[in-house]
Amino acid sequence: MTAPNLATLWGETIVDELAASGLDAVCVAPGSRSTPLTVAFADHPDVRVFSHLDERSAAFFALGRSRKTGEPTALVCTSGTAAANFHPAVIEADRSRVPLVVLTADRPAELRDSGANQTVDQTKLYGDAVRSYRCLPEPAAEDRRLRSLRTTVCRALATSTGTPPGPVHLNVPVAKPLEPTDTPDGVGSIPESFAASDSLGVTGRDGPFVATSQGQLRLSDRELARVASEIDDADRGLIVAGPSNRPTPAREALATLAGATGFPVLADPLSGVRFGDHVSDVTVCGGYDSYLDAAGDWPDPDAVIRFGASPTSKTLRRYLRDADARQFVVDPAGAWREAAFTATDLVTADPTGFAGGLAARVAADDGTETDWTKRFARAERSYWDLVGPELDGTLFEGSVAGRVVEALPDPATLYVSNSMPVRDVDRFGRPRTADLSILGNRGASGIDGITSSALGAASGTDDPLVLLLGDLAYYHDMNGLLAVARCAVDATVVLVNNDGGGIFHKLPIESFDPPFTDQFKTPHGLDFESTGDLYDVGFERVADGDALVDAVSSSVGSAGTQVIEVTTDAAESHRHRERLHERVCEAF
Amino acid sequence: MTAPNLATLWGETIVDELAASGLDAVCVAPGSRSTPLTVAFADHPDVRVFSHLDERSAAFFALGRSRKTGEPTALVCTSGTAAANFHPAVIEADRSRVPLVVLTADRPAELRDSGANQTVDQTKLYGDAVRSYRCLPEPAAEDRRLRSLRTTVCRALATSTGTPPGPVHLNVPVAKPLEPTDTPDGVGSIPESFAASDSLGVTGRDGPFVATSQGQLRLSDRELARVASEIDDADRGLIVAGPSNRPTPAREALATLAGATGFPVLADPLSGVRFGDHVSDVTVCGGYDSYLDAAGDWPDPDAVIRFGASPTSKTLRRYLRDADARQFVVDPAGAWREAAFTATDLVTADPTGFAGGLAARVAADDGTETDWTKRFARAERSYWDLVGPELDGTLFEGSVAGRVVEALPDPATLYVSNSMPVRDVDRFGRPRTADLSILGNRGASGIDGITSSALGAASGTDDPLVLLLGDLAYYHDMNGLLAVARCAVDATVVLVNNDGGGIFHKLPIESFDPPFTDQFKTPHGLDFESTGDLYDVGFERVADGDALVDAVSSSVGSAGTQVIEVTTDAAESHRHRERLHERVCEAF
Repeated sequence: MTAPNLATLWGETIVDELAASGLDAVCVAPGSRSTPLTVAFADHPDVRVFSHLDERSAAFFALGRSRKTGEPTALVCTSGTAAANFHPAVIEADRSRVPLVVLTADRPAELRDSGANQTVDQTKLYGDAVRSYRCLPEPAAEDRRLRSLRTTVCRALATSTGTPPGPVHLNVPVAKPLEPTDTPDGVGSIPESFAASDSLGVTGRDGPFVATSQGQLRLSDRELARVASEIDDADRGLIVAGPSNRPTPAREALATLAGATGFPVLADPLSGVRFGDHVSDVTVCGGYDSYLDAAGDWPDPDAVIRFGASPTSKTLRRYLRDADARQFVVDPAGAWREAAFTATDLVTADPTGFAGGLAARVAADDGTETDWTKRFARAERSYWDLVGPELDGTLFEGSVAGRVVEALPDPATLYVSNSMPVRDVDRFGRPRTADLSILGNRGASGIDGITSSALGAASGTDDPLVLLLGDLAYYHDMNGLLAVARCAVDATVVLVNNDGGGIFHKLPIESFDPPFTDQFKTPHGLDFESTGDLYDVGFERVADGDALVDAVSSSVGSAGTQVIEVTTDAAESHRHRERLHERVCEAF
Repeated sequence: MTAPNLATLWGETIVDELAASGLDAVCVAPGSRSTPLTVAFADHPDVRVFSHLDERSAAFFALGRSRKTGEPTALVCTSGTAAANFHPAVIEADRSRVPLVVLTADRPAELRDSGANQTVDQTKLYGDAVRSYRCLPEPAAEDRRLRSLRTTVCRALATSTGTPPGPVHLNVPVAKPLEPTDTPDGVGSIPESFAASDSLGVTGRDGPFVATSQGQLRLSDRELARVASEIDDADRGLIVAGPSNRPTPAREALATLAGATGFPVLADPLSGVRFGDHVSDVTVCGGYDSYLDAAGDWPDPDAVIRFGASPTSKTLRRYLRDADARQFVVDPAGAWREAAFTATDLVTADPTGFAGGLAARVAADDGTETDWTKRFARAERSYWDLVGPELDGTLFEGSVAGRVVEALPDPATLYVSNSMPVRDVDRFGRPRTADLSILGNRGASGIDGITSSALGAASGTDDPLVLLLGDLAYYHDMNGLLAVARCAVDATVVLVNNDGGGIFHKLPIESFDPPFTDQFKTPHGLDFESTGDLYDVGFERVADGDALVDAVSSSVGSAGTQVIEVTTDAAESHRHRERLHERVCEAF
């Protein structure tokens, strides 16, 4: 017990307990009220501190890191609007199940509604977007209160990695003095008697104050057998793997299930299972966004097992919507993740355990592929045979995505922005056996915070990190580039610049101009080359696919962050996608 | 009635009603779900549309505009995290009483909790920070529903300018088609019978659908007489004018009250009454932050009339806290805006009406100044006589503020950022008779959104707009500079760059390094010159006070936006402030 005052004691106890419970990283934005937390984090040997100047970017950095690592990252900010700047990332963390521990410093209760500076109502600031909210009591040197504090903090951390994972919010009111100063006037001082104390509340335990054992939901044998019998009855089964932060189900279990059922796997680029060793063993499909739409006579599936969130591909969602099929949505948290309301069964169970259990129970495959499976395998081959050479031709937005995915080293992480990039990776990112992790902020699918998210992910892995994003996303989180210098992270940024919102060319609003150009496409005319100077990162422009691949490979293979800009024409890229799709239609 | 479908009808009716009720500006961020609103706004001849690509900046732009004009500005965004990016500005608008009408597009109710794309829980997203929240019903072609819609929209607008003014939130779920397309399949179509309708719900009224007459709170004669008798009994009275978006009380009423009572006016730089014609008639004080602290034997006031929010000056707040005085907090909304809990009376009444009424009832002044008033007048003269020449000497952060205030043309608006700039303007901004409007985001005192706020204010006035801000604030809202090009606004930006958080040098944490430098001061090393290129604004560095004044005058007198950077040393500036304060202490 060395804390010179109550606020310091409180901050040290919170941070000590978080670290003892396994937290290893925090994003901190500077501020005064948060001083006890910041000082304690900076002092702690086991927690890496990432300092950010923009709270919005700080929160997305934490989100990206936790999405990559699966482990919670803490966030610290001062009171007031600082905390509201965390809100977008908190919502994304909620929707896409990323563990975060949000610590917002607050003024003590007596200052509420008094017009005191930087004092706002932080009660349940993030509404239902957090798994738990607690306003901590004010600092006190009393064993029971410190035990309570440790229990609360430790449980909040455990809640963030529960089922489903997500953000938790601890509001932390503290009174002055906030710095680790002595308190000659007695205000905020720790009683002498307590100062000598080595009580449990002060020392904590060796490890978490409360060890949490988190069970996993498993179906009973009877329930599994029932599902297995439905699957056995199916002639045309599918496994659909939607977005998930890590392979869902785990690649091995997925391969086992696909092998046992003979079902093709339609793998979203963000599912974690479009890439990996198993791709050589089972039929993993990546081109469905085009060919399912192309072949009008494609038969309906009669059984679908769905993992992860709703797929990125609208074609796939419609195909499933229109199918008269038994559709099992498998979700460990029992959430309904299917917005066409077509699914018939909700399986609330751990996806990997379920996949393994089901695989063991379905009737043994006779080893011969069915026509159905062959059809998918053939479609997949034909699709990439047709599209592959196109990707090597004139560069358009689709081929940027396709070639980046192709050029990624093994292993690597690709963070991809919403709007067109994730759709292009969906359609043009060919399944590979490489151990690729493709991540996106697909929970709320915002345009915000993507650079910070990617750099946060980079902070959590030794693998190369590539970010593929559009110009609006790049502009939106330009501040995030400061992390390159401040957080010692390293990435390759592929910036597809079509000067505005290219996605709107896909929508009917394109034919209403005005207001199309001014209010939807919103060309900004920004020359991003100066952002290279501003943030001291490399900036390079490439005009063809080979140069792009060379630049990506060179950046990945060298230290430092490079921005590689490809200028594209959104309308022309859209036409290119359509022409290609028409050719697929003709071929199928 | 020309709307081709329900969503268009809904969007047109909302916008038509807002415009009919007086709304004249909207900030729109691009998005798909908000299409019916965006199209209707873009089509409306009476509403100016400001297009922004970053919702956070959009919201602060709207905030700054409305703070300047006193009139509500609308905000439009798509569903998802876009709406959360409005949150910081919404909180600031709440705390500092700025009218905003926030329109967040949403997915229709059936998509909630379905995992549908960009669908989050937007219910009461801003918690208690809005004056009213309504989730609109979904579009319907029915007269009663359209009347209800107009009533709701019209009332929300009126609520935003009620007492106190503030943000209101309308969540707007709409289903496809979102564009003004025909609906051959009938989905979202308007029944033929209704299409011919010229019902009241469709046409609206000539003017607001519901005209709102907003009363003002006035004290009864008896109550006024009671306050007047307290004031008459006082020997040492003060008027303290805290931050307010417009002069509070109105300058003329304030001058009348000060004249009638003989009380000096301690005028916060953000009060609206530190500057203006009345300064030549009554004792308006601006140097109190230094001299009230300097003169240890300064007697307590025995009566204080407080207007506006809590003053920026900590010296003043402490002086009032320690006084054994009758303190009247006058607030039109009856809020408690005094965090030392020293005030004895809360007067819930319109400040200007109250000032005028009280002035008429206090005993006629005998025309001779009391010693008390003379003491303030003398202190004020001595202070500026001492400080004035210093401001002309070596440039430090205080003299940047002082000289900018001095150099402002008449009339002009100065937007000033939190942290040190507002404190420097408080201490070094000398009262002038010029019609200056000094604004700041002092509700929640965040570092965020300041450039957008200032440019928003610029959009609402023909007077020159100068922004004084620090480098952290500049970095935080760099995205806001895009409004220069996109929103055709013009400003002069004085950037005080001390490479980090200079304010922390004022706090005890300065002596704890680490973590002081890394986590509090946070030097970023950014060379902002490239932001000139990026945003196509002039960028100039000045090294002395005369060059600063020349640059400001030249920028104010010419078209286009210029950033004028002054590099300072935070620690040295802090010592400079202290030395100057010591000299004031010696002189008093």
